[in-house]
Amino acid sequence: MNRIDGRQPDQLRNIRISRNYLKYPEGSVLVEYGDTKVICAATLEEKVPPFLKGGGEGWITAEYSLLPRSTQVRNVREAAKGKQSGRTQEIQRLIGRSLRGVLDMKALGEKTVWVDCDVIQADGGTRTASITGAFIAVVDALAKIHTPGTPFPIKDFIAAVSVGIIDGAAYLDLCYEEDSRAGVDMNLVMTGAGQFIEVQGTGEKTSFSHAQFSEMLALGEAGIRQLIDYQKDVLGTLSWKVGRVD
Amino acid sequence: MNRIDGRQPDQLRNIRISRNYLKYPEGSVLVEYGDTKVICAATLEEKVPPFLKGGGEGWITAEYSLLPRSTQVRNVREAAKGKQSGRTQEIQRLIGRSLRGVLDMKALGEKTVWVDCDVIQADGGTRTASITGAFIAVVDALAKIHTPGTPFPIKDFIAAVSVGIIDGAAYLDLCYEEDSRAGVDMNLVMTGAGQFIEVQGTGEKTSFSHAQFSEMLALGEAGIRQLIDYQKDVLGTLSWKVGRVD
Amino acid sequence: MNRIDGRQPDQLRNIRISRNYLKYPEGSVLVEYGDTKVICAATLEEKVPPFLKGGGEGWITAEYSLLPRSTQVRNVREAAKGKQSGRTQEIQRLIGRSLRGVLDMKALGEKTVWVDCDVIQADGGTRTASITGAFIAVVDALAKIHTPGTPFPIKDFIAAVSVGIIDGAAYLDLCYEEDSRAGVDMNLVMTGAGQFIEVQGTGEKTSFSHAQFSEMLALGEAGIRQLIDYQKDVLGTLSWKVGRVD
Amino acid sequence: MNRIDGRQPDQLRNIRISRNYLKYPEGSVLVEYGDTKVICAATLEEKVPPFLKGGGEGWITAEYSLLPRSTQVRNVREAAKGKQSGRTQEIQRLIGRSLRGVLDMKALGEKTVWVDCDVIQADGGTRTASITGAFIAVVDALAKIHTPGTPFPIKDFIAAVSVGIIDGAAYLDLCYEEDSRAGVDMNLVMTGAGQFIEVQGTGEKTSFSHAQFSEMLALGEAGIRQLIDYQKDVLGTLSWKVGRVD
Amino acid sequence: MNRIDGRQPDQLRNIRISRNYLKYPEGSVLVEYGDTKVICAATLEEKVPPFLKGGGEGWITAEYSLLPRSTQVRNVREAAKGKQSGRTQEIQRLIGRSLRGVLDMKALGEKTVWVDCDVIQADGGTRTASITGAFIAVVDALAKIHTPGTPFPIKDFIAAVSVGIIDGAAYLDLCYEEDSRAGVDMNLVMTGAGQFIEVQGTGEKTSFSHAQFSEMLALGEAGIRQLIDYQKDVLGTLSWKVGRVD
Amino acid sequence: MNRIDGRQPDQLRNIRISRNYLKYPEGSVLVEYGDTKVICAATLEEKVPPFLKGGGEGWITAEYSLLPRSTQVRNVREAAKGKQSGRTQEIQRLIGRSLRGVLDMKALGEKTVWVDCDVIQADGGTRTASITGAFIAVVDALAKIHTPGTPFPIKDFIAAVSVGIIDGAAYLDLCYEEDSRAGVDMNLVMTGAGQFIEVQGTGEKTSFSHAQFSEMLALGEAGIRQLIDYQKDVLGTLSWKVGRVD
Repeated sequence: MNRIDGRQPDQLRNIRISRNYLKYPEGSVLVEYGDTKVICAATLEEKVPPFLKGGGEGWITAEYSLLPRSTQVRNVREAAKGKQSGRTQEIQRLIGRSLRGVLDMKALGEKTVWVDCDVIQADGGTRTASITGAFIAVVDALAKIHTPGTPFPIKDFIAAVSVGIIDGAAYLDLCYEEDSRAGVDMNLVMTGAGQFIEVQGTGEKTSFSHAQFSEMLALGEAGIRQLIDYQKDVLGTLSWKVGRVD
Repeated sequence: MNRIDGRQPDQLRNIRISRNYLKYPEGSVLVEYGDTKVICAATLEEKVPPFLKGGGEGWITAEYSLLPRSTQVRNVREAAKGKQSGRTQEIQRLIGRSLRGVLDMKALGEKTVWVDCDVIQADGGTRTASITGAFIAVVDALAKIHTPGTPFPIKDFIAAVSVGIIDGAAYLDLCYEEDSRAGVDMNLVMTGAGQFIEVQGTGEKTSFSHAQFSEMLALGEAGIRQLIDYQKDVLGTLSWKVGRVD
Repeated sequence: MNRIDGRQPDQLRNIRISRNYLKYPEGSVLVEYGDTKVICAATLEEKVPPFLKGGGEGWITAEYSLLPRSTQVRNVREAAKGKQSGRTQEIQRLIGRSLRGVLDMKALGEKTVWVDCDVIQADGGTRTASITGAFIAVVDALAKIHTPGTPFPIKDFIAAVSVGIIDGAAYLDLCYEEDSRAGVDMNLVMTGAGQFIEVQGTGEKTSFSHAQFSEMLALGEAGIRQLIDYQKDVLGTLSWKVGRVD
Repeated sequence: MNRIDGRQPDQLRNIRISRNYLKYPEGSVLVEYGDTKVICAATLEEKVPPFLKGGGEGWITAEYSLLPRSTQVRNVREAAKGKQSGRTQEIQRLIGRSLRGVLDMKALGEKTVWVDCDVIQADGGTRTASITGAFIAVVDALAKIHTPGTPFPIKDFIAAVSVGIIDGAAYLDLCYEEDSRAGVDMNLVMTGAGQFIEVQGTGEKTSFSHAQFSEMLALGEAGIRQLIDYQKDVLGTLSWKVGRVD
Repeated sequence: MNRIDGRQPDQLRNIRISRNYLKYPEGSVLVEYGDTKVICAATLEEKVPPFLKGGGEGWITAEYSLLPRSTQVRNVREAAKGKQSGRTQEIQRLIGRSLRGVLDMKALGEKTVWVDCDVIQADGGTRTASITGAFIAVVDALAKIHTPGTPFPIKDFIAAVSVGIIDGAAYLDLCYEEDSRAGVDMNLVMTGAGQFIEVQGTGEKTSFSHAQFSEMLALGEAGIRQLIDYQKDVLGTLSWKVGRVD
Repeated sequence: MNRIDGRQPDQLRNIRISRNYLKYPEGSVLVEYGDTKVICAATLEEKVPPFLKGGGEGWITAEYSLLPRSTQVRNVREAAKGKQSGRTQEIQRLIGRSLRGVLDMKALGEKTVWVDCDVIQADGGTRTASITGAFIAVVDALAKIHTPGTPFPIKDFIAAVSVGIIDGAAYLDLCYEEDSRAGVDMNLVMTGAGQFIEVQGTGEKTSFSHAQFSEMLALGEAGIRQLIDYQKDVLGTLSWKVGRVD
């Protein structure tokens, strides 16, 4: 299969993360995976949920939303419907869990990090772009309140990518049209140290073999390594703080 | 009072409307009034609400939302709360009413125009920017399906601006900091022919006299005339369709 | 146009405010603008919302509702639907804002005034009748706890009326049938000193010129002056407390 | 015990039903049991719920609400809370069931009768007053569309009353203060023919014996007989239609 | 009429209560009235609702639910609909009120007993089976924390049963098929001392006479006496605690 | 680590599936994974969601719920809260997707299969037990309407199991206590042909390496093979229908 945008099977789309995208949040980016565009904002709050009060540890929570016309067909505004869909809840739980995997809650202290991922344009991979972009917004937010010489509360880099099987072959970072045709869909979240935080493979239309799964995993790992290299470029010297007492 | 951004009392902020901002909607813009940024998308649907069925006329409806971190302090996501605030509903009713004021429902035919105004950054005047920007998105959407030689379903231009009284003096197009200090707040929606669609003056902190009200009105009218001139520039030759059988 | 009830264009309907209409509330009236009938009740609560706690100032909040058969066609009960309509929220925000405009929050102290406006019969002008009637209910409620010799927490009178344009001419205090035919609808809220609290003009069916707007404003001002005279009659000597240290 | 209003144990409060209380509904009354005041409105709709469609039978459904300040302490508006309480639902189910007991659904044909009971002032017995008053509103509504010579769709009269046990003795038609002190509370709904539609005895604070229950039942039956006599007075010659082909 | 399961008119179905049905709750049973099966669980919580705080008394509250396929036709899951039906709320209020009738709130102290009644299979009489079964679960839960020598917080036994009139004759403990045919339906809740807590007779399809009501009451009383005998068997020596300082 | 119930790392708990557990549903089982107990019911409905109408294909949808006291600490009833949690929605989406993976929608025809998984007791692995049990309920339901000689609409067996990493070592089929201690949690859904439908590995507390992931996958595959052998035993000769034209 030739990909509609001419990419190689193991090639990412054009990736761009623009820092300080908004005026007010402590950290904010516009992250682009090709035509997929997500605004990620990180907000710091000086309190934690009741179940953590007094324990000295912090918390991170994520919310996700699609603008009604981020999609080909207008999707009904969840605020108007009065409830978030199962898909939305599943995605925001995934984003929160992923970022939690690299946060040092003790070093953070009794603070909550709110992460808002609002999809402006949805051309496939919105949840993986959200994770990769939100990571940068959170680093920027926490850097603003970091006391030099103390442990920076982020232990490692984290990024995410999708892989899918179309007509029996595996492809990295699917766009919407590819995603619609994929029989199997995998989302992979991995750290800078190459450790997995989340591996989700789903046979949307067909089942998949052990061998196919391994091939997808390998494609995804290579893709995430490139994404994390790009995150380091974007952060510049700030990237040195991650995982350090700096 | 010297304005914080050095403007004259009767001076608009930098206004910018970027057309075709999104990939999927029939019409979409990013509208900026200074640091206020709103994405306006127009969607066409080939049906009308039940109460209009079979009458040969169309409908337009608007929805409005603030991204959680469009504001200085994070505002709770309405989809998560499960309901839209009174403020949100008031604003989306205003936007819908304003656009309805220049639409020719018969010429539109049995179609619904959905307008989504999503505020990316809120530095005052989000409802007026939404109206001014949504107008352009709707023109673009309707131009796509317009049959030459038939009446274009938009009868006139429409734009909106705020005016406020701070320490007894009137100022055009308030930014957030000015808005917080204003005792009186007016929103004005006016057509290209200089006719009003909506005049709303509210004594948020103090009451206001007949004379002050007239002064605000005059400032607003002059501001909207400039905004409509800019809308014409932005649309270029497409602006000729408005109000014509073309 | 001859008005259906034979009134002059600048003539109010029969206005009546019956005090102490209910047995339990601290203040309550039945207000009638012709066939429009609204029960307004004022309740005092010895606490304020969290954002005001400890500041020494009070608060006022209003709720509005239509009985299902107050209207020609039964309107669905909002408690059964599970949410208040945009129209309801817009009206209760307006009532609250209007009363807030004449309250002295410092003199009130850390109390909340709850105002309930329940429309028994809706023949046009329910929001303006609510404001005019609720004012009396609030005066009665606050008089009950007023310590002589201290500033009475109401600074001025306030009343409201609608004006509309039908077939190009302006009419005061529209009944439902007139309201349905009006192309332009204005609601005006004004104090005893002739200061505006709210001016809302809306082109429901057509736009309106600056001159027409001025004409409506003049009609409305004259109408409110009469309404406030009537409020003074209704309150009798109690009216002397308003705006005084008594 | 001497009753606080000097009544005998088996004496009703002053009962009053004012017909045609509202301008718009097909039938409407203000019903008063002493200081308890309820507006009952009956609306006819030319369709039935889906599960009855095409069967040739009609339906009746009731809704009930307390105005926020009908009670001593303000009760939170259910439309604002976004849901009806269990108590509200229980009462509206009771009202609907009671009226259904005397309706001839075949004679009604495929129509729905909507009954709205809105409590203006709640001094005990609001549900029983609602049933007694709503009956009159429904008769008035159905009389308006009745074709002489066909069966009138109401088969019999119906009224309701409460009885309670206070300090071991039984009392008819409790007011709020008595109700608060009652250990046992009974609501009785009975037809003109002396048949029960509903008997509900509840030990709110204490249990009750078979003998006490029988005593309450006897008091209630006598009370309802008086209420139905009064309903006949109120309806005048219209009362002849009930249970007849007229 | 011969009953479909060959029972005499005054005969209960096979009754079974299996204690300690679940692993985690403080008390839990599976109660069976023939094919009707309900899991009742009692949970103790060391706090009371706000309106009871500091008064030294406890509280009991009940929740009820039907599994979607406990019924012949699948009933929509209330969690998915987002609200509990009027029927559900009515039943859980009845269960709570019934158990409250035999609890000694002072002896309980500032604790809340949560009762969950989840219907696994619904063949008529689910509310009465819930009451009879929940009683045992609550005894088991409270026995676990009872200090010997202090008053046991349950004053008496309580059980419930339904009675109905089919074709003019009264039958005890209706199964679903009988219930569907019954014109009148009674639910009776009675204590070990033969005192009523609740008597609810409803003419679902027809009205009923005083004589019929008395006959139903007698059948129900006899049925509950048998149910309470069975409860004592099931509890064994634990039954001695009820109503004693033990 | 010695497992608390003495199992080997690669050993399942006692598995039991009891068919025809409920009286009314077309298919129903009680599935037990040790102390985890779930009632799974399958309902057939002769219609499909709107988006499938007229296409000749069927649909399957799943709902999941925890009884309030299925868990150690009582979890709030979702019907009372008025919404389903993110966790519930995620699980019911997983169950539906898994079953969809082995259904032949064309052979099913325009029918919907509703699957209800209600957890009676939750000792870890409720979602995997739900999938394994629901499969049997669906086979039973579809067998009832299967026309011999036509393709049976289930193409293959499907079962699910969890695997986790505790202190660096992998264990099969975690119970609740193990699950609470696991740093990594994997859920695996696999068909009789050894194809994956879903692979979800989540680093709840720690991240995991590629090698650890492979070890978990191997444990899970072996466990599911045993589960599917057991499913075949349970179904007996009915198991021959799966994947056949029979």
